Amino acid sequence: MQRIEQHACFGGSQEVWQHRSEVLGCDMRLAVYLPPQAAQGGKLPVLYWLSGLTCTEQNFITKAGAQQYAAEHGVILVAPDTSPRGDDVANAEGYDLGKGAGFYVNATQAPWAAHYRMYDYIVDELPALVEANFPASDARGICGHSMGGHGALVIGLRNPSRYRSISAFSPIVAPSQVPWGEKAFTAYLGEDRAAWQEYDATALVAHGYARTPLLVDQGGADEFLEGQLRPQLLQAAAEASNHPLTLRLQPGYDHSYYFIASFIGEHVAWHAKALKA
Amino acid sequence: MQRIEQHACFGGSQEVWQHRSEVLGCDMRLAVYLPPQAAQGGKLPVLYWLSGLTCTEQNFITKAGAQQYAAEHGVILVAPDTSPRGDDVANAEGYDLGKGAGFYVNATQAPWAAHYRMYDYIVDELPALVEANFPASDARGICGHSMGGHGALVIGLRNPSRYRSISAFSPIVAPSQVPWGEKAFTAYLGEDRAAWQEYDATALVAHGYARTPLLVDQGGADEFLEGQLRPQLLQAAAEASNHPLTLRLQPGYDHSYYFIASFIGEHVAWHAKALKA
Repeated sequence: MQRIEQHACFGGSQEVWQHRSEVLGCDMRLAVYLPPQAAQGGKLPVLYWLSGLTCTEQNFITKAGAQQYAAEHGVILVAPDTSPRGDDVANAEGYDLGKGAGFYVNATQAPWAAHYRMYDYIVDELPALVEANFPASDARGICGHSMGGHGALVIGLRNPSRYRSISAFSPIVAPSQVPWGEKAFTAYLGEDRAAWQEYDATALVAHGYARTPLLVDQGGADEFLEGQLRPQLLQAAAEASNHPLTLRLQPGYDHSYYFIASFIGEHVAWHAKALKA
Repeated sequence: MQRIEQHACFGGSQEVWQHRSEVLGCDMRLAVYLPPQAAQGGKLPVLYWLSGLTCTEQNFITKAGAQQYAAEHGVILVAPDTSPRGDDVANAEGYDLGKGAGFYVNATQAPWAAHYRMYDYIVDELPALVEANFPASDARGICGHSMGGHGALVIGLRNPSRYRSISAFSPIVAPSQVPWGEKAFTAYLGEDRAAWQEYDATALVAHGYARTPLLVDQGGADEFLEGQLRPQLLQAAAEASNHPLTLRLQPGYDHSYYFIASFIGEHVAWHAKALKA
């Protein structure tokens, strides 16, 4: 682990680290915000943030303004990159496949299977790395935006013993049923749609995977609302399976970080309450 | 005026507008945050933000997290660009002269004098535009960072009837005495250093220009602290002329927006108090 950025921020430290990922077979960057309480000797809960299409570890830490709330609640924030990186990593034309678009799955298809194992990276390697190198407890929450909202819902639901709290902004709730997901899953997972179900939050909720309560905020003026996000699919599955879901439609808000910034304080507070319970 | 961006943000609206500047002789962009109170029919005070080297109207609105405090206090935020723009505007190699580096002066030297009149743009054209097109009162505060901190101090001090409150982050307090300022002022204003004094906050304070109280935050780990910023020069001038200055050295903080984000809430509150008095 090599630290490549460090900035004082709200009394704590916003850092960016680089490490060799064994799971992904490449060098990866991750952002870590250590709140002021991290200097006091104990271990703190961690909120993992998964970003959306085209993002790196930078977007969340520069635009969301989450550090002030992490400082208030004594929570570490960890924001990884959104795909494997490097010259020998497969890529594609377009912003919605390949680098910057890992979709938090373990790819099974060529040429992606060699490096695109973001599911295992986020579930196993990343928390182990964080808990070995920072004053981080194993009280973990997970949150994300758009493609990262999909990732947070799927990873949280499939690993209830590892994540105590789950929330999302503008998530792709049913990737099996929308163009972004169909394109990515076909490439990464192949044509057999049965293999897609374990990476589809709506399918997981419908099949009664875990009972972890979900908090989802969705902007009412989001340009991707009807074409790619369709939160009503998750809502219907949650109602059918009696899964606890708080879905909030926020009128007027779009898909940008201005939306995230406006409500991230409530998400951090919601996670902090669960992580400290 | 043409609106080119609009995002709901903390209950208000973060907008970016484009207009033809008569003063600068080019098209300019400016960012305007309208807090929720702007929809209630009255006029609101305005805090003008001047950005630093290399910035556009985007940096402050995406990275500082100021909107939440503007929403709390009912203050409009206006963030202009940092120089004239366009293919026919003179430029130079390097980040510290030409586009993105207007230094908030009226240039008198070729080839800069044709467009580089950022002082007049900020003092006259911009407030007139804002007050004609938004629910903005003439209660104005001014704040900025680095080169923009220099601009805020100079413009505020020279126009006490137009700006009720002045603050700065990491300002270039004495451009006549540091490399950034010497390079820019030589190019824009010529070799005669006497002409530089009206654009030098330390000289203005030393000569007793106005009595407007100044709030200045400076990071103790700022990489430009000793070479370019030197707040002790302003402090000495303020002490000698008995000018009210609150200079706060914030240990550990650097020159980045992580520093600004950490303290912008206190600045917005400080301006709001003065603007509503």
